[in-house]
Amino acid sequence: MPTTIVTGKNRAVTDVTLDDTNKLIIEHLQRDGRMSYATLAKTIGLSEAAVRQRVQRLLDNGLMQIVAVTDPLTLGFARQAMVGLRVNGDLRAIADKIAEIPEVDYVVICAGRYDLLVELVCTDDEHLLDILNEKLRAIHGVSETDTFMYLRLAKQTYAWGTR
Amino acid sequence: MPTTIVTGKNRAVTDVTLDDTNKLIIEHLQRDGRMSYATLAKTIGLSEAAVRQRVQRLLDNGLMQIVAVTDPLTLGFARQAMVGLRVNGDLRAIADKIAEIPEVDYVVICAGRYDLLVELVCTDDEHLLDILNEKLRAIHGVSETDTFMYLRLAKQTYAWGTR
Amino acid sequence: MPTTIVTGKNRAVTDVTLDDTNKLIIEHLQRDGRMSYATLAKTIGLSEAAVRQRVQRLLDNGLMQIVAVTDPLTLGFARQAMVGLRVNGDLRAIADKIAEIPEVDYVVICAGRYDLLVELVCTDDEHLLDILNEKLRAIHGVSETDTFMYLRLAKQTYAWGTR
Amino acid sequence: MPTTIVTGKNRAVTDVTLDDTNKLIIEHLQRDGRMSYATLAKTIGLSEAAVRQRVQRLLDNGLMQIVAVTDPLTLGFARQAMVGLRVNGDLRAIADKIAEIPEVDYVVICAGRYDLLVELVCTDDEHLLDILNEKLRAIHGVSETDTFMYLRLAKQTYAWGTR
Amino acid sequence: MPTTIVTGKNRAVTDVTLDDTNKLIIEHLQRDGRMSYATLAKTIGLSEAAVRQRVQRLLDNGLMQIVAVTDPLTLGFARQAMVGLRVNGDLRAIADKIAEIPEVDYVVICAGRYDLLVELVCTDDEHLLDILNEKLRAIHGVSETDTFMYLRLAKQTYAWGTR
Amino acid sequence: MPTTIVTGKNRAVTDVTLDDTNKLIIEHLQRDGRMSYATLAKTIGLSEAAVRQRVQRLLDNGLMQIVAVTDPLTLGFARQAMVGLRVNGDLRAIADKIAEIPEVDYVVICAGRYDLLVELVCTDDEHLLDILNEKLRAIHGVSETDTFMYLRLAKQTYAWGTR
Amino acid sequence: MPTTIVTGKNRAVTDVTLDDTNKLIIEHLQRDGRMSYATLAKTIGLSEAAVRQRVQRLLDNGLMQIVAVTDPLTLGFARQAMVGLRVNGDLRAIADKIAEIPEVDYVVICAGRYDLLVELVCTDDEHLLDILNEKLRAIHGVSETDTFMYLRLAKQTYAWGTR
Amino acid sequence: MPTTIVTGKNRAVTDVTLDDTNKLIIEHLQRDGRMSYATLAKTIGLSEAAVRQRVQRLLDNGLMQIVAVTDPLTLGFARQAMVGLRVNGDLRAIADKIAEIPEVDYVVICAGRYDLLVELVCTDDEHLLDILNEKLRAIHGVSETDTFMYLRLAKQTYAWGTR
Repeated sequence: MPTTIVTGKNRAVTDVTLDDTNKLIIEHLQRDGRMSYATLAKTIGLSEAAVRQRVQRLLDNGLMQIVAVTDPLTLGFARQAMVGLRVNGDLRAIADKIAEIPEVDYVVICAGRYDLLVELVCTDDEHLLDILNEKLRAIHGVSETDTFMYLRLAKQTYAWGTR
Repeated sequence: MPTTIVTGKNRAVTDVTLDDTNKLIIEHLQRDGRMSYATLAKTIGLSEAAVRQRVQRLLDNGLMQIVAVTDPLTLGFARQAMVGLRVNGDLRAIADKIAEIPEVDYVVICAGRYDLLVELVCTDDEHLLDILNEKLRAIHGVSETDTFMYLRLAKQTYAWGTR
Repeated sequence: MPTTIVTGKNRAVTDVTLDDTNKLIIEHLQRDGRMSYATLAKTIGLSEAAVRQRVQRLLDNGLMQIVAVTDPLTLGFARQAMVGLRVNGDLRAIADKIAEIPEVDYVVICAGRYDLLVELVCTDDEHLLDILNEKLRAIHGVSETDTFMYLRLAKQTYAWGTR
Repeated sequence: MPTTIVTGKNRAVTDVTLDDTNKLIIEHLQRDGRMSYATLAKTIGLSEAAVRQRVQRLLDNGLMQIVAVTDPLTLGFARQAMVGLRVNGDLRAIADKIAEIPEVDYVVICAGRYDLLVELVCTDDEHLLDILNEKLRAIHGVSETDTFMYLRLAKQTYAWGTR
Repeated sequence: MPTTIVTGKNRAVTDVTLDDTNKLIIEHLQRDGRMSYATLAKTIGLSEAAVRQRVQRLLDNGLMQIVAVTDPLTLGFARQAMVGLRVNGDLRAIADKIAEIPEVDYVVICAGRYDLLVELVCTDDEHLLDILNEKLRAIHGVSETDTFMYLRLAKQTYAWGTR
Repeated sequence: MPTTIVTGKNRAVTDVTLDDTNKLIIEHLQRDGRMSYATLAKTIGLSEAAVRQRVQRLLDNGLMQIVAVTDPLTLGFARQAMVGLRVNGDLRAIADKIAEIPEVDYVVICAGRYDLLVELVCTDDEHLLDILNEKLRAIHGVSETDTFMYLRLAKQTYAWGTR
Repeated sequence: MPTTIVTGKNRAVTDVTLDDTNKLIIEHLQRDGRMSYATLAKTIGLSEAAVRQRVQRLLDNGLMQIVAVTDPLTLGFARQAMVGLRVNGDLRAIADKIAEIPEVDYVVICAGRYDLLVELVCTDDEHLLDILNEKLRAIHGVSETDTFMYLRLAKQTYAWGTR
Repeated sequence: MPTTIVTGKNRAVTDVTLDDTNKLIIEHLQRDGRMSYATLAKTIGLSEAAVRQRVQRLLDNGLMQIVAVTDPLTLGFARQAMVGLRVNGDLRAIADKIAEIPEVDYVVICAGRYDLLVELVCTDDEHLLDILNEKLRAIHGVSETDTFMYLRLAKQTYAWGTR
């Protein structure tokens, strides 16, 4: 299963200017990712070709990805959890190693009680235990894991707008 | 800023069958949310009209949303953080209250050291402090907050497939 | 659902002597609770009537209960958890209050980081959240809950013998 | 001292259907494990032979065990404790290793602050210290133990019914 | 049971000079509290009357107490524990309140994770639970207690000499 | 500096009966360790020779020690601290190793967040740091130390009576 | 004792341009705060009057303060400590309240296990206890304090240069 | 970037008497480090030469340093953090090793949950992560880091006077 990884390293490597028009395009697509170029063009006041080109460049430069976001539960993933990790060794290298696990959909290096926060999407308890035990904890340098099982998702949005 | 809230409550209220064809459609759109109906139809082996209808029903029933996902940093949100909360009182009611804060893009009720995990997307430290202090901690029942500032995002994917 | 509560208070209120014969009877029944009185009598070297009377007195005095013990999972209880609690107020009164919740099968007052340990047997995540939220945390004096979700039961035995 | 170990692995390996009649039988035996086949048969409305056969199959398949459950204290075990463990290495292998200690009557792999929860039944403090020091902590991979001494058992039941 | 309380407040209120001779006397009595005045006098090189007067003044001024120190266990106190407390309110007032509990033989205000450390000497678990529950935790301002049950005393000395 | 170590191991090795008379003697000496044999004899109603013999046997068997107890502060020890330790390895062996440090006046193996509690009596901060750094933490198996500096001693008594 | 408070609020209120010359001046004064205007002028290549004016404006705008920094210990402040605080209520208001305590020389609102970090400079243990007990913990909203006593200062510098 | 390190070791190595006049001089310079010798002389009632000599000796002996103290933020250091460390090994040696990192402006050995407190001054998140990951955590013996990101500095003063 190929995954689209957005890493901090790649953030700066882009030549697209985030002008007000691009921000406006992003805000519309944050709410409806399949809005047609025609509708976008009319709303923004540009030609359809110009809008299409802008969207394509935003995608090509990794500033934006347009994806289907689903509730894991309805797709057969009954067990989700956040794992707080204490690690010994190179934080970036360990984070990248963890990112290779397909059941991991989220890895962040953070400040505080944990060195890393990792989200897991699994089918059931045995699957979760497999991932924790044979994949996550088996990575060299992982010394402590605190697992927060999800009981209920109350909000998940991607429409945070632009500044 | 309007937000698209997916709550646990709404999960079961749907009449769409998640058959293998729907799962296949979802998997393609998880990787490219703007894939044309024509391409989808050809890949899956259905008519374009049938594919279009299926996609529409998946969206209408809230089983899937297609959205632009961006790196908050490039859009001017320099401060992201996960907050672990201890609360007193009704977990669901407090979670729903927190979900109303626009800067909160993620709320989950969980088991473990924290009762809730909440993600914040802010422009800078003062903004983050404002949200923590005047919004999150001001909600009745929130008794402890542990803030994990993000130093580097190493992976974020939505392509977890289907089971 | 009626429950059989063994409390510390009642421990001393008994007039049965735990002599070596009674201990031997208990050790056999710890391994096979339905062993017939005939077999028990032969093994121990007493008359069947004497054995039957001893067993009955052990049961009547609450020194022993003979019960079917099952794996909750196979009976439709997919979510089990231990909850560590910090409480304010009378430990015994709060423990007794918690013991009234049917989904609670185990309550112990302990020394250490938690004041009480409580085991829950639930059907699914929403059920577990209901018990936590509307029953356990709603009891006056409960100030903090740490929930340990069970991923896999590795041992459960009642045959600890006698001393 | 032989012990009856119920492991997660064996849970699925059974060919008994848990129909409503079996559930009814279990619920009766959860309250009185020595209820006679005659009484069971009359209550449920089956022949005594049919009931006997069903009970036997439930026992043979490990779906149910009928055992004498006693208060450890009255049998000379004055020290009981729950131990929360942090471990390094294979959770399942370490859990199985711990399950071999006779004084351990309960081992569960869990999510949260601890990796494992282990219950100990001992005769006195020196015995408890021996088990902790020479057996539990001596197992390779056990890195931290938090011991919760029991002060008072407030509830212990096995009659959680069926779903 | 009367108790001899040594408080920090009283420390400075004394007119005895702790000269080298007094220090020498203390060091001898730290090892043998019943050493006769004759022996003390000979060892130190003073008259018996002078030694007797010095000892008396050290006792009268509370700089030294000579007491029988016993192992609580051999005197029927089978349960000893240190309790770490978090409190709200005046540390000194709460410490003094706790010091009034006869089963408390030691109270110290400290810096770190706990505000106070309190040692308890009890006869058994129920006694310990009574003290914790009805006395210690019932004091206004005590918000959290962490109880460390003693498993084995490895060293206890009062012969720390002088400087 | 010689130290009087009372270890758990030696507790049982005694042939003195702790009858009511002995308990009465101890209670008197807990309050005044230098009470004369004449006064003791009169109060208890025995001959002076009998009392002297009993006291001597209590001392010889290590059931009681009579010592000068002083406030460390007035003797030039300005820094006292309790240290909570996490250790890897044999608890008893490590406790005995720590007991050899002269500045340590108290070592107990306990249950809870710490494996050992150790009290230090030092002259100043640099001395305390020396003991922590070069002695306590240098012992093989000591993995974590939490130091609780004493701010004020509110109670210290040895008169816990007998049961 | 008057104190010079630098608050985050005032940071932005300035009209001084931090050009390279100003940065150079600051870097010199970070190492020697009493460097004469003549020496500064020669090193930087400006007139003495221009340098004097620039220094004055940096001071007037609060971008820089030139102060005597001393080791508290040599001035009679034998007890220094960092205090981590958990608070309920408005973080900024509580921080400002704490900042009014003369013995507090440092207050920062932070993310993580503590809401605030506060440094205290005191003369001795009783003074420290007074400040903790009667001033810091007496402020409404302060719910938990963790005190880290300083054992040894290993580095303190203000010469962090400019960027 | 040269740094001025004040270590505990050097504290005692001085021959300057801290008489009342020297204390008065220090108190004035704590408030205005560039106060002219003329003004100082007039205020204190000494000759300008005497004041100049005294100031010079205070500086030469390291009892006082006069430096420009700035808000790191205005000089381009947008990320400040306190790091609490758990370490294995010689506390003084590790503290000295950490003190060599230029971005570290503060290192203290302390008692409590952490062994060391270290303050970092960085330009941005990536810089902070670099220091944490490649410098601080790479030092042999550093086993755990808890990072407290600064959200807002509420007080920073050096005018603590003298005693």
